[in-house]
Amino acid sequence: MDVKRGILISIEGGEGAGKSTVLGAVRDYLLGLGHAVTVTREPGGTEVGERIRALLLAPDHAIVPEAELLLMFASRAQLVKELVELALARGETVLADRFTDASYAYQGGGRGIAVEHIRELERRFVGVQPDLTLLLDVGVEQGMARAHGRGQALDRIERERGEFFHRVRDAYLARARAEPERIALIDASQSADDVVRQVLAVLAGRVPR
Amino acid sequence: MDVKRGILISIEGGEGAGKSTVLGAVRDYLLGLGHAVTVTREPGGTEVGERIRALLLAPDHAIVPEAELLLMFASRAQLVKELVELALARGETVLADRFTDASYAYQGGGRGIAVEHIRELERRFVGVQPDLTLLLDVGVEQGMARAHGRGQALDRIERERGEFFHRVRDAYLARARAEPERIALIDASQSADDVVRQVLAVLAGRVPR
Repeated sequence: MDVKRGILISIEGGEGAGKSTVLGAVRDYLLGLGHAVTVTREPGGTEVGERIRALLLAPDHAIVPEAELLLMFASRAQLVKELVELALARGETVLADRFTDASYAYQGGGRGIAVEHIRELERRFVGVQPDLTLLLDVGVEQGMARAHGRGQALDRIERERGEFFHRVRDAYLARARAEPERIALIDASQSADDVVRQVLAVLAGRVPR
Repeated sequence: MDVKRGILISIEGGEGAGKSTVLGAVRDYLLGLGHAVTVTREPGGTEVGERIRALLLAPDHAIVPEAELLLMFASRAQLVKELVELALARGETVLADRFTDASYAYQGGGRGIAVEHIRELERRFVGVQPDLTLLLDVGVEQGMARAHGRGQALDRIERERGEFFHRVRDAYLARARAEPERIALIDASQSADDVVRQVLAVLAGRVPR
């Protein structure tokens, strides 16, 4: 019997955009529809990926942009081969807390790495693209205020200066303009309830029952 | 005042080829000529690279070939940007215990990753190529017997089966045939003294005084 291929939904956004809240709401919505849901995160999501994550986010390392990019793609390649491809083949819905768009935003926009380097890595080592991406967009200052308000220590990337996050946001928004069919732009400046309402409205029109 | 650009010499070879002995002899020879010598190793050679090395060589991880390749290049990109380019610009001689040829041999030949993937990564994220590569060639069985005789625990890659190392050796030899000007093929089946003698004869004809 043929199993229908599953779908990949990614959630993207800068610091303080409310990804965790949205992730929980989307997972519950999908489970309510009877989907088998596999949740992942990046960098990480596998044993090897989580070790790469620890290396990437430790605040005491001076990692050059090219190495940061390659580490992100190493984690992503491991995730895709070890987990995502198999879950999709089993017909499951994969819900990813960040995916390749994040490299275009953070390493491309933020660090200034040429887009064609990232595109080559995506083409050669990732292959799969999200069927739907929820981009949670919030102004940099508002997002930073929320992130700092969590009271947790900031990781290596969260410690960047404001202009870095402006470039990240601009790169995310450029992706959304270039691929409006795939990327749903969500106004994440509103309250958590309102953001979740917007997200569920998008899902209602896009996710098979 | 213009500083003359330094040279990059890499030492390559499979398990038990005698790289450490040769590295020490080459370093001493270069120091004797008055070169400023920077010694590196791969994966590793920087703080970040050594953490990647630990991840790559830990025997308990199941790393997919694509992630292994990207981790190797992450370590190499960090090494080149943080150390090699600056040392060469200062006019130093960089002596590298493995460099990009090792990815063609281990991840290309050994793991079966397409050569064009590796070539793209080299072109985009490494740039620099060795001026001289010493390829220490020894039969797989002889090399394995030497490696096992060291009495140390074997790392994740050393635990591969014999056919893996045959593919690695074949890929190294193919590189040497393709680039005979750059890659000096050394018969490493002989005694350590004889191997060092061969290496020093190559250096005498190739290294500026």
